[in-house]
Amino acid sequence: MSYSEKILSKSVDPATQQMLEFAEKQGLETAWDRYEKMLPQCGFGELGLCCRICNMGPCRISPFEDTGPKKGVCGATADIIVARNLIRMIAGGAAAHSDHGRDLAHTLLLTAQGKSGGYEIKDEVKLAALAKEYGIKTNGRSKEDIALDLAHSVYAEFGKQEGFVQFSRRAPERRVALWKKAGIDPRGIDREIVEIMHRTHIGVDNDPVNLILQGLKASIADGWGGSCIATEISDVLFGTPEPVRSQANLGVLKKDEVNIIAHGHEPVLSEMIVAAARDPRLLDKARAAGAEGINVVGMCCTGNEISMRHGIPIAGNFLQQELAVITGAVEAMIVDVQCIMPALGDLCECFHTKFISTSPKAKFPGAVHMEFNEEKGFDIAMEIVEAAVDNYAMRNPDKVFIPEDKTDCMVGFSTEAIVKALGGTLDPLLDAIKSGAIKGIAGIVGCNNPKIKHDHGHVALVEELIKNNVLIVSTGCNAIACAKAGLMLPEAADQAGDGLKGVCKALGLPPVLHMGSCVDISRILTVCAAVANALGVDISDLPVAGAAPEWMSEKAVSIGAYVVSSGIFTVLGTVPQVLGSPFVTEILTKIANDVVGAAFAVETDPVKGAHLMIAHMDAKRQALGI
Amino acid sequence: MSYSEKILSKSVDPATQQMLEFAEKQGLETAWDRYEKMLPQCGFGELGLCCRICNMGPCRISPFEDTGPKKGVCGATADIIVARNLIRMIAGGAAAHSDHGRDLAHTLLLTAQGKSGGYEIKDEVKLAALAKEYGIKTNGRSKEDIALDLAHSVYAEFGKQEGFVQFSRRAPERRVALWKKAGIDPRGIDREIVEIMHRTHIGVDNDPVNLILQGLKASIADGWGGSCIATEISDVLFGTPEPVRSQANLGVLKKDEVNIIAHGHEPVLSEMIVAAARDPRLLDKARAAGAEGINVVGMCCTGNEISMRHGIPIAGNFLQQELAVITGAVEAMIVDVQCIMPALGDLCECFHTKFISTSPKAKFPGAVHMEFNEEKGFDIAMEIVEAAVDNYAMRNPDKVFIPEDKTDCMVGFSTEAIVKALGGTLDPLLDAIKSGAIKGIAGIVGCNNPKIKHDHGHVALVEELIKNNVLIVSTGCNAIACAKAGLMLPEAADQAGDGLKGVCKALGLPPVLHMGSCVDISRILTVCAAVANALGVDISDLPVAGAAPEWMSEKAVSIGAYVVSSGIFTVLGTVPQVLGSPFVTEILTKIANDVVGAAFAVETDPVKGAHLMIAHMDAKRQALGI
Repeated sequence: MSYSEKILSKSVDPATQQMLEFAEKQGLETAWDRYEKMLPQCGFGELGLCCRICNMGPCRISPFEDTGPKKGVCGATADIIVARNLIRMIAGGAAAHSDHGRDLAHTLLLTAQGKSGGYEIKDEVKLAALAKEYGIKTNGRSKEDIALDLAHSVYAEFGKQEGFVQFSRRAPERRVALWKKAGIDPRGIDREIVEIMHRTHIGVDNDPVNLILQGLKASIADGWGGSCIATEISDVLFGTPEPVRSQANLGVLKKDEVNIIAHGHEPVLSEMIVAAARDPRLLDKARAAGAEGINVVGMCCTGNEISMRHGIPIAGNFLQQELAVITGAVEAMIVDVQCIMPALGDLCECFHTKFISTSPKAKFPGAVHMEFNEEKGFDIAMEIVEAAVDNYAMRNPDKVFIPEDKTDCMVGFSTEAIVKALGGTLDPLLDAIKSGAIKGIAGIVGCNNPKIKHDHGHVALVEELIKNNVLIVSTGCNAIACAKAGLMLPEAADQAGDGLKGVCKALGLPPVLHMGSCVDISRILTVCAAVANALGVDISDLPVAGAAPEWMSEKAVSIGAYVVSSGIFTVLGTVPQVLGSPFVTEILTKIANDVVGAAFAVETDPVKGAHLMIAHMDAKRQALGI
Repeated sequence: MSYSEKILSKSVDPATQQMLEFAEKQGLETAWDRYEKMLPQCGFGELGLCCRICNMGPCRISPFEDTGPKKGVCGATADIIVARNLIRMIAGGAAAHSDHGRDLAHTLLLTAQGKSGGYEIKDEVKLAALAKEYGIKTNGRSKEDIALDLAHSVYAEFGKQEGFVQFSRRAPERRVALWKKAGIDPRGIDREIVEIMHRTHIGVDNDPVNLILQGLKASIADGWGGSCIATEISDVLFGTPEPVRSQANLGVLKKDEVNIIAHGHEPVLSEMIVAAARDPRLLDKARAAGAEGINVVGMCCTGNEISMRHGIPIAGNFLQQELAVITGAVEAMIVDVQCIMPALGDLCECFHTKFISTSPKAKFPGAVHMEFNEEKGFDIAMEIVEAAVDNYAMRNPDKVFIPEDKTDCMVGFSTEAIVKALGGTLDPLLDAIKSGAIKGIAGIVGCNNPKIKHDHGHVALVEELIKNNVLIVSTGCNAIACAKAGLMLPEAADQAGDGLKGVCKALGLPPVLHMGSCVDISRILTVCAAVANALGVDISDLPVAGAAPEWMSEKAVSIGAYVVSSGIFTVLGTVPQVLGSPFVTEILTKIANDVVGAAFAVETDPVKGAHLMIAHMDAKRQALGI
């Protein structure tokens, strides 16, 4: 099939291209259309030079040397305004991740108390390991008792007023020492986020360096705190992922089954949806309605969560959520929190699709709200799945258009799974890095963004890196892009450079390891910390790098900040709203090196971005003498 | 003296007019000039229609029916964008107040532990009363032991994950029941703020009603939580204010003394500055330098704090901070947090004035940073005051221009002081309200804003209200405006209507009662709750109203939200950035009545605003049958 230039400019993903053409013919609007209508975007906003923090404003700093105001009404300069806006984005992102972690902590608490509806402690090994980190006794105690203590401990991390976040102590000692020296070793998670909001209030912190340091502090509380809690407690409750086969892309939707998309982020909901969809009564009901079965598929990070643990297929990444509805084959789009387009409401009106919101924190126009809570998790999931089954009768077969594209993938590479695949120790990986067979490790993460051709940023970057013997660990929308592109199969090793190919072939691993959802970037931190500790160096000494080629969300801003704060050079593929302050830009891209031993680069060309990362790894290798 | 139309349009305050003319002649820039340079302000921002929450944007919703985008890239409508922006302002304001309360809780903790540098427990009666509220035993215990328990309890309010904020239970039972029903009874203070940041992340909460409810919830955590803690613990540590004479306006600066301005918000710093300035060694040093003494004066809410407790003069309110420097007579502008213009840095460069920042949370361009901490409070304050004394030699007498204006005032009307003035019971006040001698009570608060003629919004509103027998309780920049205008003297009762005049004369009270700083609006809530409880009704049944005639800060947005959530009709004198969504505007101005029994009105004409409040009081009186 051949598409117009316009469609080819929007995505490299064949299913997406096909659906975009279909949507265009049907006159259905997608995010790409809305993006085009928004052009030209506000230049002040793009540069970060717009301030709406108080009602003396809105203020706009002129980016031109000779004309227009150089200070807001309060006197805030471009540097101050850009820094404040930036760290408020970190606050938003860290808050999102941390609330996710908090919900898991709460679910663990309820489960330990025997009050949760259908949850259980699935990974006792991890439970014991986490208990040990917190100094909780495990000998001769029931898993519920241990879990209760652990739940109280992790739950307390959010509200802690003093002290430090326990999981941050996984970082190498000299990293922690560096954080302390810079004043960015976080106290409680919520406190750091709230302090950002205070500092960015009118007339409080007006020093870009001081502001950005607080941003980094809150981001560390996210990466090594809220996100890490989300990941670890999810593993305790739902099992630590192990390699499993799955499939990705819109072709996983089935013509003859009740299609349920679980979309959003928190496994607390989706795990129960998966369980409910296996219930014999509902399966019978689906069959009675003429369907062959119930097909639960995931979308965005929920897709990552349930594919990692159950091999459930992933329908697509962020920019495909509308396209999934446009297939006309979705009985229910079930959502919880984060990255859910409110546009789905109007779109679902054009189809029989039920748009079901479940979180008290996230309601949507046009959605049916079926509120989920952990105490009655399974029962509510049953009701939701039943609503989807009942909706099958409303499907109009004439409107159904499912692309055939779906790609096999191997997912489920938790830290534990990687160590296991290596034979129980990190040594084979360390040896491969030392020998140069593997040049380095890159963590590629983040969203989609219509500012960059869908999946192109992800796939082109990853392909270039593996060609150059860089092993990829991937999460979020990058993971889904790579899965769709076939890069998460052991066979994809053939696309890698000889060194990496050899390692992958020997171990039966794909060159791109799916480590999970966006909170699971904490797994990447844990691996990096373990490697650094094994080598007796800091994370910033390792030949590793990060990239967010198509990022768009505030979570990505927080992620970037904590990855850099952890000592990892990071390339951004879309331009952050900071260029209006050359000083803030310099802090982020240069001065940060002096403070945390890493910095950002911005490079919208993914191949060039890959080479920035490779050059960085080469330099680190040289410094290590390998 | 007669001023140009331009200057007369900027302020009604004679000292300000004089300084503006002087500044103009000297070519010195002030906030008014920067405001003019910013005109026209961005219409999208003014209407709340600009979204910079993710990097698919910035997005702008067209306010015109026929042209331009109606949805952001994610699909967010005007309603969603406006609601998100609004509650992020509440998050900023609640964070600021709460961090203020947190610092006080921390200082109490250190003091109870014997670790603070110079603080002591000054009000044991209040300590015991608060302990009782928290169920802390007091019998036979030392004040330090009681304070330790209380400190732990109030400190824990910030990080609490479940339960409720204790001081919120001062509200009438039916108010608490109403909050519970609406789902806006706050849990921990930080948690509610963080949840705002999560919900407003891309793709989370997209329901304007649900968003605004969370905003109200966090605001209640501010008003009845963070702010209330700030007030109550300040009273324990520094004494509960009692009526005291003071003076206000720039004329309080002295030609022959070392002038120190304590500017910002937290009494933790300013109390120690006041103490240090009385130190004989420093006084000697000042005299040796040729000064007659050390003149500490306050500015903004710090001014309110130290005038309430020590009768220290107040140099001015928010828009006068630059003018104070322009007098050329200020040796040190000592600041902590909130509402401190970063413009002070460049301005102080034009004079000998040392701009001294003290909080790790708030640094400023051009400031000397002398970091304050409670453990060494007095010692650091000594160093800071000494720096000011040393700077006296650098003053250039030719540059000194101090306006003569200063007005006597009576300040210090804490709730306890009001009850005492009434003879130990609220009855005389209740009787006066029942008889109609007092029509109602109005809480007038908030900032300055160059969008409205300085002090005109405050003074014209208050004058109109007292003329109509409305008793005023005042805080923040309104209190300072009223003090300067002579409205805080018992003699000002002559400007009141006959009923109020009679009550004031009988009790020796001014018609405008200075209740403190912006966190002290919690005192107003406490009074309203006490009156409602005494009458066996809800706060929303009382003939009371609130107004923020010149508001500009996010704190004011949070204040407005918790005042309305507490059942008090509130008039805003500058236009909030919400008009781009008629639905959100309707929620705030109408629908809120159905949920919390009160709503906002926007009225930029202060006299008209007064009559909205009076009409509201008349209606409430009628409903009460009085």
